[in-house]
Amino acid sequence: MKQKKDPNWKNKLHETIYEADTHHGKWFDIILILAILASIILVMLESVESFDKKYHNFLNISEWIITILFTIEYIARIISIKKPSKYIFSFYGIIDLMATIPKYLSLFFVGTHALVALRALRLLRVFRILKLARYLGASTKLMQALKASRIKIAVFLFSVIVLTIILGTIMYLVEGPENGFTSIPQSMYWAIVTLTTVGYGDISPHTPLGQFIASVVMILGYGIIAVPTGIVTSEITKSELEHHHNNTQHCSHCNEDKHSDKAKYCHNCGNKLNNE
Amino acid sequence: MKQKKDPNWKNKLHETIYEADTHHGKWFDIILILAILASIILVMLESVESFDKKYHNFLNISEWIITILFTIEYIARIISIKKPSKYIFSFYGIIDLMATIPKYLSLFFVGTHALVALRALRLLRVFRILKLARYLGASTKLMQALKASRIKIAVFLFSVIVLTIILGTIMYLVEGPENGFTSIPQSMYWAIVTLTTVGYGDISPHTPLGQFIASVVMILGYGIIAVPTGIVTSEITKSELEHHHNNTQHCSHCNEDKHSDKAKYCHNCGNKLNNE
Amino acid sequence: MKQKKDPNWKNKLHETIYEADTHHGKWFDIILILAILASIILVMLESVESFDKKYHNFLNISEWIITILFTIEYIARIISIKKPSKYIFSFYGIIDLMATIPKYLSLFFVGTHALVALRALRLLRVFRILKLARYLGASTKLMQALKASRIKIAVFLFSVIVLTIILGTIMYLVEGPENGFTSIPQSMYWAIVTLTTVGYGDISPHTPLGQFIASVVMILGYGIIAVPTGIVTSEITKSELEHHHNNTQHCSHCNEDKHSDKAKYCHNCGNKLNNE
Amino acid sequence: MKQKKDPNWKNKLHETIYEADTHHGKWFDIILILAILASIILVMLESVESFDKKYHNFLNISEWIITILFTIEYIARIISIKKPSKYIFSFYGIIDLMATIPKYLSLFFVGTHALVALRALRLLRVFRILKLARYLGASTKLMQALKASRIKIAVFLFSVIVLTIILGTIMYLVEGPENGFTSIPQSMYWAIVTLTTVGYGDISPHTPLGQFIASVVMILGYGIIAVPTGIVTSEITKSELEHHHNNTQHCSHCNEDKHSDKAKYCHNCGNKLNNE
Repeated sequence: MKQKKDPNWKNKLHETIYEADTHHGKWFDIILILAILASIILVMLESVESFDKKYHNFLNISEWIITILFTIEYIARIISIKKPSKYIFSFYGIIDLMATIPKYLSLFFVGTHALVALRALRLLRVFRILKLARYLGASTKLMQALKASRIKIAVFLFSVIVLTIILGTIMYLVEGPENGFTSIPQSMYWAIVTLTTVGYGDISPHTPLGQFIASVVMILGYGIIAVPTGIVTSEITKSELEHHHNNTQHCSHCNEDKHSDKAKYCHNCGNKLNNE
Repeated sequence: MKQKKDPNWKNKLHETIYEADTHHGKWFDIILILAILASIILVMLESVESFDKKYHNFLNISEWIITILFTIEYIARIISIKKPSKYIFSFYGIIDLMATIPKYLSLFFVGTHALVALRALRLLRVFRILKLARYLGASTKLMQALKASRIKIAVFLFSVIVLTIILGTIMYLVEGPENGFTSIPQSMYWAIVTLTTVGYGDISPHTPLGQFIASVVMILGYGIIAVPTGIVTSEITKSELEHHHNNTQHCSHCNEDKHSDKAKYCHNCGNKLNNE
Repeated sequence: MKQKKDPNWKNKLHETIYEADTHHGKWFDIILILAILASIILVMLESVESFDKKYHNFLNISEWIITILFTIEYIARIISIKKPSKYIFSFYGIIDLMATIPKYLSLFFVGTHALVALRALRLLRVFRILKLARYLGASTKLMQALKASRIKIAVFLFSVIVLTIILGTIMYLVEGPENGFTSIPQSMYWAIVTLTTVGYGDISPHTPLGQFIASVVMILGYGIIAVPTGIVTSEITKSELEHHHNNTQHCSHCNEDKHSDKAKYCHNCGNKLNNE
Repeated sequence: MKQKKDPNWKNKLHETIYEADTHHGKWFDIILILAILASIILVMLESVESFDKKYHNFLNISEWIITILFTIEYIARIISIKKPSKYIFSFYGIIDLMATIPKYLSLFFVGTHALVALRALRLLRVFRILKLARYLGASTKLMQALKASRIKIAVFLFSVIVLTIILGTIMYLVEGPENGFTSIPQSMYWAIVTLTTVGYGDISPHTPLGQFIASVVMILGYGIIAVPTGIVTSEITKSELEHHHNNTQHCSHCNEDKHSDKAKYCHNCGNKLNNE
């Protein structure tokens, strides 16, 4: 798998940074993830005003350390790869760049709100941690279940949106701006808040008719919430059952492995199966 | 399928408007749906007061354009069909008419609230978009699952309503008007808001006894929410399994019929299967 | 089934009132249920103050009509049965009596709140409507699914209560009375409101630590809500599958009918099965 | 199972306290659980200020009685066991000690808030009641279902946390401190409250863009809530089906092993089954 043609320091760096199956690579990954987590916690703490006032210097210095580390990593990634453009314009390449730039910009533009927003871009590096999920292996199955039911989910979402438009309009006409339903989009926001059973209560019906319609909507939402659950559960159960059924029977002739439990002959080539 | 006896412009128009399997028909459908979406967005924007004040003229002109387009479509539909009465008094025929009339009425009655309501009727055209769902094909299965469990859902809804009446009365007596439970219907509204776990918080129990009863209701609701989910999930799983198991394959030798989808040979006797 | 020994008017009355399989019996049931619904709606409307003020006389007269009808029904039930004590002290007998008494009491005690409560007792007659569910037949299966999982549900509820006690105490100590968590029972009420995802917002954490604990509780609740759903769904699916499996195979020897799909011999007596 | 070598009073005490299968042991368990429940109710009532003021003496005396009973139990447990250190430093040993100490400390430090907190430690004894669940036997299956899906649940929780960080940051930037989103952690708290469909409403979006993002988040949460339900349901269904199918019955003639629970004869060859 690894390319051993050019065994200089560049290749070693490449191995460390881009591959997770060597000793160095694993440690690099762990340290990188810790650094990302630290940078995320820094952005969070900075947003807490009382904390920022108290420990401004500590936060500032820590940010500079993280930023410089990320810059070194970014440069190392460019140097160690053969076609730097492939990394630079990749999804992670752009995120990695955006994670370092804002702090440098803060030297020129001081204290503007826009910069806080830019600094938050560093949070996008959290996606790198998502790679961790691969180690657990279970995410693939989960993703498959979601993927397999994507059409059903699309139909479901589409119906919810149409329902939301109709409900939003009805409630706007019934309740009106004087009860908080100031516009149709606002009413649609209320319909989603209600259908999903979130129920903030920032907008709620006040007229008897409005409350009656809302009651019907809620009981509807009750039934509707059952649909995505049913879809996903059915997919997971199916994938579980399939996985469950064919754990032992591999055909010795064609290597087909998806036989049902009671199969005596391979359903692919007709060869007799040897069950233990 | 298509009637080719009378190949004049009327038939061509009919094909374009009523059939989706020709080149023109597809484009007509797409443009119609875009026009409906545009008209829905217009109604929405108009309801946002600040937006309406700023861009009143733009909204008004756009509405007239949409209305005239819809009128042309309505007339074209009447002309191109052989028995116009069949379209005019159909569900979509009435909706299509109601989508155009309000704007014309606004010439005579200016600025009344009732007209806003009438204009919102245009939203009903959104049902036309629902036809889109057919292209996806998955809605049938979803509908079947819901249909198959309609008796169970009815029993469930009925039990919820009886429960709501009893809970509403108890809470009205326990909490009373001074804590927001001003009447039994209002209390029932609270019971539904709570049982469905929406929980606006516009009405909430204040007495210790009321809070205790509410707690019991919520834990009840916890169990109750499981019932529709269970019903729908079980239906979807069943239809999935049935679909999965018995596509078409019966063994001509031993009549075994539970082969998996990909089976080429019977897993019971090794006989070759005849798939269509 | 019917007793034909004493064919006088008493027996005819008994048939009409207690049995649903005769022409008269059916009509009596339907009228009774409509009268109960009317009486329930009356109690509801009476609790709406503005409505009560406007139509007080109409409500009062309607109530007297319903009460007298219920009294006649109560007396008829006593007369037509052979052992009146069996009816009088049955569940429905007591409810039927309690549905009539309050209105008569209102002649002696005027306008007290306690009487409104008593009048609400009439709502208990709603249970008679529950008999309707029997006609639908599906409720039995639903009840079975709930019954089969009653131990699991008990364990689940027990765990939720223990969790609630611990969470309630922790939040009482963390947030304290100044943030609305005035006592441990109040805190437990909050914990239930949160765990069941109802979330009124009448009590909500204000300190950062409290919000952090609440976040953990909510994600916990996320997982917890899955447990009852899983239990009920699994029961319904199981009962569906069982129902699904043994639709054709009755043993001609011992009449056992719960064979699995592939059974060739009766699993009860070893007799060969005749499958169609 | 029981050690009968040293039949003095210590052994009898040991049997009573540590074993539940003797007559005395059962009664000891029941009385202990009632005492724990009483102590929990006392802590709860004490936290209700109005109740505490009225019945202060009653609560104080009851607490002393419970504390002395717990102290006696604690000493009895140490005396009756062979290696006291094994009990003292066990989980329950530490909890039992912490349940008695606070009341004695209250003699020296009067009326401080910290003591209320300490007294609440007694609630931890509630875990002893959890042992009760064992009698029901069903908890094991529930625990297994949760354990079997722990990796999937971990992946799920991890994705929810990453989602929460991203959503929290976006909403902090969109809504800002003026609409209640005072910091990123606060925004994350809002994201969790929304995703879990709790929806307190203490923080809710006010800008149109914020409401739009919130709507998307809620519909997302709709789908997300389906995932843990699907995982747990699939696990429970699987364990149910396994339990259902392969209790013990293998046919000694044809080795068929998928008999239903009640089967007396093999459904494949008609051979008599040997059940234990």
